[in-house]
Amino acid sequence: MAERRFQLYDTTLRDGTQQEGMVLTVEDKLAVARRLDAFGVGFIEGGWPGAVPRDTEFFRRARTELDLRSAQLAAFGATRKPGALVSVDPQVRALLAADTPVVTLVAKSHPRHVELALRTTLAENLAMIGSTVRHLVHAGRRVFVDAEHYFDGYRLNREYALEVVRTAAEAGAETVVLCDTNGGSLPDEVRAVVGDTLQSTGIALGIHCHDDTGCAVANTLAAVDAGADHVQGTAHGYGERCGNANLFTVTANLVLKRGIEAVPVERLREAAGLGRAIGELTGVPGHPAAPYVGATAFVHKAGLHASALRVDPDLYQHTRPELVGNEMRTLVSDLGGRSSIELKARSLGYPVTAGSNEVARTAARVKELENLGYAFESADASFELLLREELAGGSLARPFEVESWRVGVDRLPQGEVRTEASVRLRVDGIPLIASGEGNGPVNALDRALHKALDPRFPELAGLELVDYQVRVLNAEAGSEAAARVLISYRHGGRCWATVGVDENMVAASWRALLDAVHFVLLGREGTERLAPVAAAS
Amino acid sequence: MAERRFQLYDTTLRDGTQQEGMVLTVEDKLAVARRLDAFGVGFIEGGWPGAVPRDTEFFRRARTELDLRSAQLAAFGATRKPGALVSVDPQVRALLAADTPVVTLVAKSHPRHVELALRTTLAENLAMIGSTVRHLVHAGRRVFVDAEHYFDGYRLNREYALEVVRTAAEAGAETVVLCDTNGGSLPDEVRAVVGDTLQSTGIALGIHCHDDTGCAVANTLAAVDAGADHVQGTAHGYGERCGNANLFTVTANLVLKRGIEAVPVERLREAAGLGRAIGELTGVPGHPAAPYVGATAFVHKAGLHASALRVDPDLYQHTRPELVGNEMRTLVSDLGGRSSIELKARSLGYPVTAGSNEVARTAARVKELENLGYAFESADASFELLLREELAGGSLARPFEVESWRVGVDRLPQGEVRTEASVRLRVDGIPLIASGEGNGPVNALDRALHKALDPRFPELAGLELVDYQVRVLNAEAGSEAAARVLISYRHGGRCWATVGVDENMVAASWRALLDAVHFVLLGREGTERLAPVAAAS
Repeated sequence: MAERRFQLYDTTLRDGTQQEGMVLTVEDKLAVARRLDAFGVGFIEGGWPGAVPRDTEFFRRARTELDLRSAQLAAFGATRKPGALVSVDPQVRALLAADTPVVTLVAKSHPRHVELALRTTLAENLAMIGSTVRHLVHAGRRVFVDAEHYFDGYRLNREYALEVVRTAAEAGAETVVLCDTNGGSLPDEVRAVVGDTLQSTGIALGIHCHDDTGCAVANTLAAVDAGADHVQGTAHGYGERCGNANLFTVTANLVLKRGIEAVPVERLREAAGLGRAIGELTGVPGHPAAPYVGATAFVHKAGLHASALRVDPDLYQHTRPELVGNEMRTLVSDLGGRSSIELKARSLGYPVTAGSNEVARTAARVKELENLGYAFESADASFELLLREELAGGSLARPFEVESWRVGVDRLPQGEVRTEASVRLRVDGIPLIASGEGNGPVNALDRALHKALDPRFPELAGLELVDYQVRVLNAEAGSEAAARVLISYRHGGRCWATVGVDENMVAASWRALLDAVHFVLLGREGTERLAPVAAAS
Repeated sequence: MAERRFQLYDTTLRDGTQQEGMVLTVEDKLAVARRLDAFGVGFIEGGWPGAVPRDTEFFRRARTELDLRSAQLAAFGATRKPGALVSVDPQVRALLAADTPVVTLVAKSHPRHVELALRTTLAENLAMIGSTVRHLVHAGRRVFVDAEHYFDGYRLNREYALEVVRTAAEAGAETVVLCDTNGGSLPDEVRAVVGDTLQSTGIALGIHCHDDTGCAVANTLAAVDAGADHVQGTAHGYGERCGNANLFTVTANLVLKRGIEAVPVERLREAAGLGRAIGELTGVPGHPAAPYVGATAFVHKAGLHASALRVDPDLYQHTRPELVGNEMRTLVSDLGGRSSIELKARSLGYPVTAGSNEVARTAARVKELENLGYAFESADASFELLLREELAGGSLARPFEVESWRVGVDRLPQGEVRTEASVRLRVDGIPLIASGEGNGPVNALDRALHKALDPRFPELAGLELVDYQVRVLNAEAGSEAAARVLISYRHGGRCWATVGVDENMVAASWRALLDAVHFVLLGREGTERLAPVAAAS
């Protein structure tokens, strides 16, 4: 087999959408495709035209709305129906109508699936593969064949599985992709089966894994080690059941650990940003603990590590986070102790030392508040306020006082729901009273706060609420449990978050809203500060 | 090396607590330990006495409050300080004071960590290991040694790494655990290093992996294949950065795929329940897509699969879900189409067929509502209501009408927050008006609803709200985005959930509250139903 360029094939828009909770519009799919193309994947599988109406529409719009640079678009579909003519098979026609450079056909390679799911003979299945591939190649398509349930099929009937691979290749398929459809294989089996298939057929092979044994990434690497040069995966490992092989993890491992340019090494620096963008587009964020691109992938919490990290970050990281566009963070937590607080404070630019009273008092307050349900790990602005208070000797002059507030949500007899909030504040002894309407209690309170304060403090006008999350603590207790509210803001080009905890969800939100206003009003002047420390030397 | 019983070693309570967002009380830790013991793990690492005050307290209380059947408790700590006497080292004393049958010592095996983090010589590090192990063995402890950063250390200086293993074993350590502390290794390297270490030293080896390359599970299996007979992991893969090897996945793979009785095979059936229980105790639920025990691990969504699944579930599952205490579920979603709706309806006991008008109309409504942000995948009661409506020809007689409702949250000048809700309903033309106080808007509305309805519909008295979750949709739009509320209930021994979507979080909650009341009041009579279908034949 001649050397060819390594093929990175993304199936987020087809197999990834099998993920629970994932419903993508055509716009979402177009946006995801553009981001994947910019990352440098070789192939983007857009969907199943003819079977899923939204996917037919996606390919129609892709022709005019997608201008891909590095990737080719692939349409996914099945071989023709048993006993039918390929030229009139409606599904094959839909594949051609999608008008993509690549078509990926799913073909059965497991005898029992042929008999029970397709309800045809083993010979007819081979004929279906051969004629469908030839038909598409004749129409000018590059054809890949996904050999479904290959590993299970190989175990049951090795000869037939190999025959499927040969039939596809002889009909003109460029790559035959061995699929561990049920995800039950382990790396040693994958390596052996891929190796034997390659040796027996000499055909260019790909690999498509699922994570049902927690080995999708390792199985993919084992297949590459055995000679596969085409790998399939999905952003964040989206997919049915336990998901598909995580394309980000696989790509980073291939580039950084194996030296295989699955994407250009400089594009890999966009991986973490791509992960966040796709999480926003799909509404299903990646796992925070995901390798390489996860929010916590390079986060250190333990006191043991925090003190050694100051000496040499490389001792505690298997790779440089900047290579995948991520960064090292230190968490604030009672477990990490003073050393973490010092590191976190210094990363914010405050020149404190772990032995100081201010750090000790901050650590004690963090611990106390975390016992109540607070979490400062993501709420950097609330942490900085707390630190500033301790640096100022325990309290800060607050620019206004809160006298009272109220929110009412009314569902009127006509069906309309009206939400109104009012706040009563006091600045320098002068009352500031305002009310606001909103489409929910937090929105109404936020507007009332701005209406009361913005005329007096114009810097608040640029404060924009960008995300709101509630988590119910001690969930077993249900609606009587405490709520932790995390609010993310954008202000003057920076993003930060505040936290509030209260048994009342609205009161918890108020605390977080108030922290944000205080954070802006206190500004950052009047304190000796360092330049931010670099993430890694 | 003589055959010995395979050692499954859990470090959820020590290394797992490095997980972001995880703060466990002593009660939580005792409860987790009891559950792990019931599952059949061999060893439970409880924490680091002396270094973490909560852990010292845990071991103190464990002596009287834990009655472990299968597991032995291990205390974790470091070797003595450089140049100090082991007998007076306060940390070693704390280890002995913990009074556990097992002590696990962390030892440096990477030369640069010895020099930069411990700030001592390579020779003194070996002396520290030797004297600390001997001291603890002399005091009657079984000693395990965690060789920290072993794989990185081995790459830098193989001879020194092997010397650490030999020193520990010669001093009396029963097992030396090779730790991929930074999680950067891949399975082939792990297999080679473990194999060489075993061959060179002949010492019983363990493995401790982190998931920074997405290979923690595969690395653990590779080490076992190379001869390690002690594996460490954490529940749900909790841990710092990308987490530790997931103990549930590793155990299920060992038992079901390798035939190694890491836990008795009948105990494995408790795995999914154990996962849920530990998620509740720690407040950090496992990933829904986690292998074997995840909520979606055996969930099918695709229409393609759903129709074939009816023929033979084993064709689409790599293992039987009941072997790990999980179950097959079919998701309701527009992607799955009529075939999924039929399967879901039949699993609820409704004898419908995919070709019927009722199923077509239900599928269309599910699709329409999902476009608005609804998700029926978890909200089984809301789905069943919708199905019942379609089976009844499009609408069901509702036992009451809603005229209006309101909620007010007032923060009084004294600082107290008061929440009051009132509802105005109508039954058979008669108005039912009630109000209720609560510690938040949902709680207050729930109470007002019960106060209005319970006297008239006594079956509602047993309806208990057990969990409440809000998700902000289109998060980028912040507080102006829509909210999806999911409420879980317990009623008459069954658990089920309802869903509501609205731009107003309180109105979304109201919809979910109302669905629950309707679900109970409609009961399940008056409809032809099947016995529930079995998950797998």
